[in-house]
Amino acid sequence: MPGSRIAIVGVGQVGAAAAYALIRSSIAAELLFVDINVNLRDGQVRDLSDVAYSCNSRTRVRAANYHEAGQCDIVVITAGSRHNLGETSLDQVYRNISIVKTAVDAMTPFKSDAILLVVSSPVDLLTSLALKLSQLPPSQVLGSGTYLDSVRLRGMLADKIEVAAKSIDLFVLGVQGESQVTAWSAATVGGVPIDKCLSAGIPINRAELSSECKNRSQSIVRAKGATPFGIASIVSSICSAIVFDKRTVHPLSHFQPSFGCCFSLPVVLGIKGIERTVKVPLDRDEDVQIADSAIALKMMIDQVSKNW
Amino acid sequence: MPGSRIAIVGVGQVGAAAAYALIRSSIAAELLFVDINVNLRDGQVRDLSDVAYSCNSRTRVRAANYHEAGQCDIVVITAGSRHNLGETSLDQVYRNISIVKTAVDAMTPFKSDAILLVVSSPVDLLTSLALKLSQLPPSQVLGSGTYLDSVRLRGMLADKIEVAAKSIDLFVLGVQGESQVTAWSAATVGGVPIDKCLSAGIPINRAELSSECKNRSQSIVRAKGATPFGIASIVSSICSAIVFDKRTVHPLSHFQPSFGCCFSLPVVLGIKGIERTVKVPLDRDEDVQIADSAIALKMMIDQVSKNW
Amino acid sequence: MPGSRIAIVGVGQVGAAAAYALIRSSIAAELLFVDINVNLRDGQVRDLSDVAYSCNSRTRVRAANYHEAGQCDIVVITAGSRHNLGETSLDQVYRNISIVKTAVDAMTPFKSDAILLVVSSPVDLLTSLALKLSQLPPSQVLGSGTYLDSVRLRGMLADKIEVAAKSIDLFVLGVQGESQVTAWSAATVGGVPIDKCLSAGIPINRAELSSECKNRSQSIVRAKGATPFGIASIVSSICSAIVFDKRTVHPLSHFQPSFGCCFSLPVVLGIKGIERTVKVPLDRDEDVQIADSAIALKMMIDQVSKNW
Amino acid sequence: MPGSRIAIVGVGQVGAAAAYALIRSSIAAELLFVDINVNLRDGQVRDLSDVAYSCNSRTRVRAANYHEAGQCDIVVITAGSRHNLGETSLDQVYRNISIVKTAVDAMTPFKSDAILLVVSSPVDLLTSLALKLSQLPPSQVLGSGTYLDSVRLRGMLADKIEVAAKSIDLFVLGVQGESQVTAWSAATVGGVPIDKCLSAGIPINRAELSSECKNRSQSIVRAKGATPFGIASIVSSICSAIVFDKRTVHPLSHFQPSFGCCFSLPVVLGIKGIERTVKVPLDRDEDVQIADSAIALKMMIDQVSKNW
Repeated sequence: MPGSRIAIVGVGQVGAAAAYALIRSSIAAELLFVDINVNLRDGQVRDLSDVAYSCNSRTRVRAANYHEAGQCDIVVITAGSRHNLGETSLDQVYRNISIVKTAVDAMTPFKSDAILLVVSSPVDLLTSLALKLSQLPPSQVLGSGTYLDSVRLRGMLADKIEVAAKSIDLFVLGVQGESQVTAWSAATVGGVPIDKCLSAGIPINRAELSSECKNRSQSIVRAKGATPFGIASIVSSICSAIVFDKRTVHPLSHFQPSFGCCFSLPVVLGIKGIERTVKVPLDRDEDVQIADSAIALKMMIDQVSKNW
Repeated sequence: MPGSRIAIVGVGQVGAAAAYALIRSSIAAELLFVDINVNLRDGQVRDLSDVAYSCNSRTRVRAANYHEAGQCDIVVITAGSRHNLGETSLDQVYRNISIVKTAVDAMTPFKSDAILLVVSSPVDLLTSLALKLSQLPPSQVLGSGTYLDSVRLRGMLADKIEVAAKSIDLFVLGVQGESQVTAWSAATVGGVPIDKCLSAGIPINRAELSSECKNRSQSIVRAKGATPFGIASIVSSICSAIVFDKRTVHPLSHFQPSFGCCFSLPVVLGIKGIERTVKVPLDRDEDVQIADSAIALKMMIDQVSKNW
Repeated sequence: MPGSRIAIVGVGQVGAAAAYALIRSSIAAELLFVDINVNLRDGQVRDLSDVAYSCNSRTRVRAANYHEAGQCDIVVITAGSRHNLGETSLDQVYRNISIVKTAVDAMTPFKSDAILLVVSSPVDLLTSLALKLSQLPPSQVLGSGTYLDSVRLRGMLADKIEVAAKSIDLFVLGVQGESQVTAWSAATVGGVPIDKCLSAGIPINRAELSSECKNRSQSIVRAKGATPFGIASIVSSICSAIVFDKRTVHPLSHFQPSFGCCFSLPVVLGIKGIERTVKVPLDRDEDVQIADSAIALKMMIDQVSKNW
Repeated sequence: MPGSRIAIVGVGQVGAAAAYALIRSSIAAELLFVDINVNLRDGQVRDLSDVAYSCNSRTRVRAANYHEAGQCDIVVITAGSRHNLGETSLDQVYRNISIVKTAVDAMTPFKSDAILLVVSSPVDLLTSLALKLSQLPPSQVLGSGTYLDSVRLRGMLADKIEVAAKSIDLFVLGVQGESQVTAWSAATVGGVPIDKCLSAGIPINRAELSSECKNRSQSIVRAKGATPFGIASIVSSICSAIVFDKRTVHPLSHFQPSFGCCFSLPVVLGIKGIERTVKVPLDRDEDVQIADSAIALKMMIDQVSKNW
């Protein structure tokens, strides 16, 4: 469905950087910018239009309102994502809940086959919220979740073992942030279990890599107040997989019926959103850790959602 | 020369957005970030490394010092470009002169075939300064100049007459900013003079288009304090033309012997920088306007350069 | 309109090579192969399906009949193009007329907004024929015409003057083949008339270049019996300009009301086919040559079409 | 190492189609064509030069002799690959041995870091031969082996289970042709063993898929006398992985010390050729089948190599 229309709701640093990647790849025919700060929105439209001109992109950029955004093929909510992936204080949580609630309410009812992608932080809580409010089916509501963490960890591992990241399958799963879990037990290189294919010569300190991966977002936020480009690149990949119906496998936050909330497990991503889930065989420890954090998330959601 | 190394000196919004485009296109093998704010620099390295991981880019990003930057194949100076293309107050002019002087001095002596690209504002004055200080030959010192203005004007015209921007040749020339000149007399569509090929049906208000093009940068700066993405896209195009020795024709700020300063006229851009100049036949008015602004720029340079 | 369907009618060397480029660029969602040689057709479907698999193309390839082909967004007729661009004997002319007539008749009525692209040789005669038989409007019936000649001549000139071919506008026009005309009087580099921008240092022997360009096709045909890859690349460019509504300017064979037949002059190419014609200011000699060959073509068409 | 030079030895259908893909992707700076049929070679140079012009490729094409070819970064031997992947009669085997022997001898001594890629058929025998004659280290002599078979089988499976082929790891291994083995026991989707991730709903007939994959090449050869485009696409992928040092995992024919001959097992492919082997855990049946066919190949090599 190129010829598709993508709405970016919240065009701060993350939204603008996502638009930048989307335009440069000509992924959508039209990109709609929505922001409560109308001045900022119009400035971004003009700056990003220059990008479209400069790289002969087929994408055209324009300002829009919430209603128009809800009628797009993909709606990316980046509002409140400034501190995305970093620690989020309770105040910020409540502020972002309020931002996302306002945005989703204003867009409802959505086009019936719209895909809603939540990037705002804390991403699993807000994806759960967006799912509930949007009245869209669970397969159409996604959160960026641990996709960036997975990509980063693969990249770090790839640099270390000198194999292409795209030949590595390794997932960071669960509730994104402090309690995310690296599924080392299921890691493969070229489809081969990592234990079997890596010769003894290359020692991999798994705990250290996982921890460095997790802490990097916070260190970026500390240095520059946000992590716009990494997450923006992920948004572009997700939109591309949807628009071109790629059916590639990625870890994304989505609804888990057994826990009653959204967090990241691998899915097949296509034009209908989540086309299928992929069941990763985890070891017991990994399973328990994910379950624990999911239960904690659900309790938090129940707590904050009393007055939704 | 892929396998090439590009240094970004100043990794604020413009520098980071330029890096983002360069990484996503795998234009360089290595991207070196230099900034006096070491925290910011390291945050950008991490954020942009995530981009490299997420799109399987061949480019690797790392922090570097001025000396290493001067040994790269291309050195992009974006420091002080925040208000790029907008009005720059006299204070800012002096501050940016000081920033660019410090950076160029610290990188001298450059690798003998390095290309130095100045994006900082006011771009023609600072390109003139960088040429003088760097001791590089004139063909290797460029300023982004009116490239973005030209691309934007072509894009606006293309949207209006419904012809691809890449089939339009139209140059904004001279000293970038208030006194820049649109060379309407030399405009062509598909190589055909625009007067002859456009049927009477599509009225083009040339003055209005030129003025809208010129004012857009300022309106973006007013809205969001900078115009990072448009200019970053241009930086990526320029680097790509150099690295891949494309020999495409673009308006770029470069040294004009008859005026003793740098401003924009079309050049053939390749691996050695300016491979050749292209002489545009302008009408008398356009010629005079460009000369007038060039003389004014030269006077300003003589004034501020007393203590260089 | 990606999601678009393209039919290749005649999947010999040219058709298969065109499909190869189309698949590798993911230009269409579906590619339909039609050939009276069903064995060959099915072999090509399998060989080209391997290509789609090997480069993760979004395009799927399948065998089809004439009726299905006529319902595609673009129909490329390559049947009888084996000797494309080379000398065609009278016998071959009559055989190709018969091949194209059979194919067009079998596809009629076409989808009302289908674009019909004729690559078979002699291209201007067969495009004229296809226009008449298909009952499609003139803006939807194109021939590859002198597009390849123009691209080749630009490339040869670009290599000589060391400027990017994409910065050169230079058209080979008129009836493709012996009497085609190079519009040197309108040649530009970066939009600047070539006489003004080329310094005296680079002598260009125009007649020699034009002649080498014209003879090259025949020399390729003599060496290998066909010129599949060059023309296939052109087919891919044309389809891409249509599918993505690029509105770029190219010389293409299309109906010329004042002569009553099809030959090449520049047009703006977009999703509706010929979106607009571009009037090139030629000198008197060039104009006369084109008119002469157009008149000869019209006479030939009148002759052979007596029993259409 | 773009800026790299690739030689195509044998520019028939496979060689030309491989060149076509390489040019359109601008993978090499220079492409050298070598063929004992000088007329054909020169015709291909001209036809493929048109391709370079038409898509603004950075690659330049030229005729060359064996000595120049041996000094390239990558040497692709496609001579005698016409019946590639299909059944090859004993006469053809001896003829192709003679062709490859002549070519390798004429190129020796090779540039010390040259990568030699054999596409000619039977590929494992001829790769073994080329390794012996070229005196290059085993990591620098590769055969296309079962790469195309693997890609095709993944594609067929991907279409069936509606998951992207790039999310599937599945290898066809061993001696290419009749006795090649599909390593179903090690197949994964998104890194997850295929048994665990595919729900019961999608029945996969493994034997049928493997057999259809194996027979497809022969059916293409029967229909059109060669399988040029599929294998050409694979050549382009292999060259790209080498030139850009991608370190992706692919099944390729290479020397197996325990058997004394070359056949396909997965390797990490990079700028030095085989950077590392990847040990796939096969089940007993698969292991035995591969060993049996390897022993048969070795005996055949010993037989035919008596007079090398």
